Amino acid sequence: MNLLKLSLIPCLLLSLISSTAFSAASKIDHLEPMFWWVGMNNPNLQLMVHGEHIGNLKVEISYPGVQLMGVTKVDNDNYLFLNLQVSSTAKAGKFNIVFRDASGKEIHYPYELKQRRKESAERKGFDNSDVIYLIMPDRFANGDLDNNSVENLSEKVDRNNPDGRHGGDIQGIIKHLDYLEDLGITALWNTPLLEDNEPQGSYHSYAISDYYKIDARFGTNEDYRRLSQACQKHGIKLIMDMVFNHCGMAHWWMKDLPSKDWVHLHDKFTPSNHRKSTIQDPYASKIDRDQFLDGWFVGCMPDLNQQNELLMTYLIQNSIWWVEYADLGGIRMDTYPYNDPQGMSEWGQALLREYPHFNFVGETWYKSAADIAYWQKDALNADGYNSYMPCVMDFQLFFEMQKAFNESTGWEKGMVRLYESLAADYLYHDTGNLLTFAENHDTDRIMWVLDGDIQKFKLLMTFLLTTRGTPQLYSGIEILMEGKKSDGDGKMRIDFPGGWKQDQRNAFTKQGRTAREADAFQFLRNLLNWRKNNAVIHSGNLRHYVPENNVYVYFRSNAEKSVMVVLNSNAEAQKINLSRFSESMKTYISGKDILSGKLFDFSQDTMEVEANTSLVIELQ
Amino acid sequence: MNLLKLSLIPCLLLSLISSTAFSAASKIDHLEPMFWWVGMNNPNLQLMVHGEHIGNLKVEISYPGVQLMGVTKVDNDNYLFLNLQVSSTAKAGKFNIVFRDASGKEIHYPYELKQRRKESAERKGFDNSDVIYLIMPDRFANGDLDNNSVENLSEKVDRNNPDGRHGGDIQGIIKHLDYLEDLGITALWNTPLLEDNEPQGSYHSYAISDYYKIDARFGTNEDYRRLSQACQKHGIKLIMDMVFNHCGMAHWWMKDLPSKDWVHLHDKFTPSNHRKSTIQDPYASKIDRDQFLDGWFVGCMPDLNQQNELLMTYLIQNSIWWVEYADLGGIRMDTYPYNDPQGMSEWGQALLREYPHFNFVGETWYKSAADIAYWQKDALNADGYNSYMPCVMDFQLFFEMQKAFNESTGWEKGMVRLYESLAADYLYHDTGNLLTFAENHDTDRIMWVLDGDIQKFKLLMTFLLTTRGTPQLYSGIEILMEGKKSDGDGKMRIDFPGGWKQDQRNAFTKQGRTAREADAFQFLRNLLNWRKNNAVIHSGNLRHYVPENNVYVYFRSNAEKSVMVVLNSNAEAQKINLSRFSESMKTYISGKDILSGKLFDFSQDTMEVEANTSLVIELQ
Repeated sequence: MNLLKLSLIPCLLLSLISSTAFSAASKIDHLEPMFWWVGMNNPNLQLMVHGEHIGNLKVEISYPGVQLMGVTKVDNDNYLFLNLQVSSTAKAGKFNIVFRDASGKEIHYPYELKQRRKESAERKGFDNSDVIYLIMPDRFANGDLDNNSVENLSEKVDRNNPDGRHGGDIQGIIKHLDYLEDLGITALWNTPLLEDNEPQGSYHSYAISDYYKIDARFGTNEDYRRLSQACQKHGIKLIMDMVFNHCGMAHWWMKDLPSKDWVHLHDKFTPSNHRKSTIQDPYASKIDRDQFLDGWFVGCMPDLNQQNELLMTYLIQNSIWWVEYADLGGIRMDTYPYNDPQGMSEWGQALLREYPHFNFVGETWYKSAADIAYWQKDALNADGYNSYMPCVMDFQLFFEMQKAFNESTGWEKGMVRLYESLAADYLYHDTGNLLTFAENHDTDRIMWVLDGDIQKFKLLMTFLLTTRGTPQLYSGIEILMEGKKSDGDGKMRIDFPGGWKQDQRNAFTKQGRTAREADAFQFLRNLLNWRKNNAVIHSGNLRHYVPENNVYVYFRSNAEKSVMVVLNSNAEAQKINLSRFSESMKTYISGKDILSGKLFDFSQDTMEVEANTSLVIELQ
Repeated sequence: MNLLKLSLIPCLLLSLISSTAFSAASKIDHLEPMFWWVGMNNPNLQLMVHGEHIGNLKVEISYPGVQLMGVTKVDNDNYLFLNLQVSSTAKAGKFNIVFRDASGKEIHYPYELKQRRKESAERKGFDNSDVIYLIMPDRFANGDLDNNSVENLSEKVDRNNPDGRHGGDIQGIIKHLDYLEDLGITALWNTPLLEDNEPQGSYHSYAISDYYKIDARFGTNEDYRRLSQACQKHGIKLIMDMVFNHCGMAHWWMKDLPSKDWVHLHDKFTPSNHRKSTIQDPYASKIDRDQFLDGWFVGCMPDLNQQNELLMTYLIQNSIWWVEYADLGGIRMDTYPYNDPQGMSEWGQALLREYPHFNFVGETWYKSAADIAYWQKDALNADGYNSYMPCVMDFQLFFEMQKAFNESTGWEKGMVRLYESLAADYLYHDTGNLLTFAENHDTDRIMWVLDGDIQKFKLLMTFLLTTRGTPQLYSGIEILMEGKKSDGDGKMRIDFPGGWKQDQRNAFTKQGRTAREADAFQFLRNLLNWRKNNAVIHSGNLRHYVPENNVYVYFRSNAEKSVMVVLNSNAEAQKINLSRFSESMKTYISGKDILSGKLFDFSQDTMEVEANTSLVIELQ
């Protein structure tokens, strides 16, 4: 990341002050949201209008069911906020918003209220029946060669630069949805696709320069809608990555802020101290808490002030706009605790008021379940805080998974880590809505952690895909992609082989995979496709047993079915005593391992499990 | 510890069955509680009576205000439980309990209801104004040479055996109360003094063989009362260590159990699996949870079945008996989560009904604050569990203290460990009632952990004695006693030099301490005596700041006073920027370090702190 160019800030403040001195002008540069829908639960709609001196214009709207309740002005007269009420009887249609200056000169700005998709409000978000595939679009596949670089956006394609743009795009994802469906994926989270016009390192798109526009190097807004529609045809829910804690330095409003308190401005560059605990800590000093929340994530990412109501409304409407426009199946909120907690709570409530069955997940990067649980909707927090965010990321289990499979047996080691981590689930309000993962775009790749051991990989995947939670896989895991964080993010986020025409092989195809990759791919494909159709793994009751000799045994069961999972994380075969599991095995007398097809007869008191082997036994 | 002699169990069962066949006899072997008090809040009193075939006797009581409501019989006719009601009008006095057999033959058993100490019910327990000194009586001082070995108790004194009895006793403690008061101690927790008649390793007395009798090798019940009275004269609250999860194999009732379900009997020796998480874990299997709760702590410690109401009543009354009899200032409950959670909740409620301002603490040996917080009275537990135990032991902070002072600066290392551990306090219902410690009789000695570094010792002690909590010091810390757990408990729990006449030196005296010990002693003595009179440290508001460069700064403040604590855990002096602390420093312009007496002028923007140095500055 580039550090903030400090010289920018005085300029910002200057423009803020000087701009109020002039009289009305004649051009609307931005009016957002660009359109809206009739039939929303919340009748209020606030339009942010930006254009030179438009703050002094009078506004009129004449359309049945739409009322301009008032206009909010800010310090900077280049902005106006129009407070509309769209009644439940309003019909979809187009009308003009009329801006008139003192001399009577008018601007007619066309606006549209669209019809919502039938049952849009009833949409279901991703849940534990899904497996989420995480893609960094720039590094996945280049589907459209024409948009690798575009004229108005600073950074051009440079595939030789690990931190540069490699040309992956929306069309590249669309082209491989067959591949993902075949693999057994049912949900897709891609890192941001919105415009990021940073001069360097823009490929990850976390420094957003326009909240309403897909980055032209990834495609168009319409392309993103096509992606969503194509996903739906493949039974895949689309999850949008949203970044509200900060925007990018290149965001258009950074050149002309609506008000001094739109972003957190500091006398000198003030980074966040990244001490997430300051939010809950009863002893935290104000200076530390403020620096955590209001400091900038990095220098090129101005920290948005979500306590500014106009901004928070802007962000909430932006989320709803994308849900409606792109027909989303979920949202992932970046750097969740860095946001204003109250703002996030309002955001969550607003989403759930529009979409009661929707799902969204925050990046809750904490080591302990207690700290993560704090952020889940309806958590039993002593301070009364309710985030209204239904899903949280289980980073505690993630950290334990990093160690568990590399260790031999021990009181707190190996499989016991998984067992004890799950034991902390009593802290969660809703254990049915936790996102589980072994790696993502910000971590070491799990195959690097496992030192390339494919047997450990299979054990870990079996665990991740059969324990409780909504598993998330990071693109490339199916072909054992490695990479380590300490080499730098860019080098860790390597291109998917075959995503580019010039690639020497295409790992999206059977022929393009090495024998080892094919083994991993087939293992995952089997497990994922089996999981897809087995509700017992999605939401079945979990019962687990204290691991003995690094063998972890647990059961998932519902009214229809019981599945026994055995993870032997030893270099030797293990004999396990079945009588210990009678509470879960009940009257079942045999079973079939869905991984190997092997049949098991439980008339014996013991069973043998091969070294470093997992079993997923459907009990019969 | 000895493993259970398995052959015993069939014998127990046999005696249980065969004993019912005989007719009434004529001797009461046990009647407990041996006496009681009038004016208790709870009018009910249940007497356990034990004697051959007494189960068939008729019972009569005739005393104003005392009514025999009924008699409860059990499988074993050597027991009777008498359910008395003592009305609020009953007067203190003596009477006979009359036992009569079918032939009319009578036993007259004298019983007494005593007068309570005035305001006994209003007693206050230990709190954060106290500093607790933990003593293992056998290893502290031998005050009475006549009771080193006694005739009826198996294990004899053997000071050459690290795991043997060394002869320390109650008189040895009484003799050194002047020493403790001078040091600045205000509360005393000694490991159990009740009789433990194990053939080996009985010195720790955690395998209790009589819940109503001080071990004769430590003294008598009357001696224990003398200790309590002497403590009060020295301004020291006496905390009794209670062990209800298990008794010792040598307990008298193990030879003639009241019922098969008095202790948890297993077909073969079944130890606890020590998986404390099974209590809260929503996925725990019954077999694992049962084994945790019902398995034996070790082989010589039969696991008491607290779900047996008669036993639970026995234990509750036993606690109240000791509070009244010995005028206690607190209770420490051993192996807290191993007890039946419901039983412990009833116990807590019963104690608080009699003594609303009393305090008691459980041994909550968990790594995470969330797991510890679960056990505190009125915790916000999703499962509704309420232990009614006001105080818990902060093992999380203990574990972090073990590492913090040995590390140089780092994102999660050094002083940050202390900061982040305290940040988790939002999880506690009552942060004002937490027991804090750097070591106890079950852990490595902190001076061994600190590799004998006295500067680190002073830093750690400053932290422990000025942060929130009720600090507990383990006897010998004031003279830098070392010892490591892996050498075995007996070797870690070494004798206090000077506690025995034949000792070559007496570290209880100034002359008996080395220069290094004297330095540590004087440091602690200063700090403890200062703390004693500074309410700001007991209950003042805590405000802390993210450590920078391994320097941790925090403030304690109340309406009267503000104290600034600085811990520089670096091998180099550090300059710290004072403007960061303006929220806490307010208008204070100077201060005095109570450790060095040094004055500080805060008119400068920075201050220098010497290497490995702590400051406790009273702000002025």
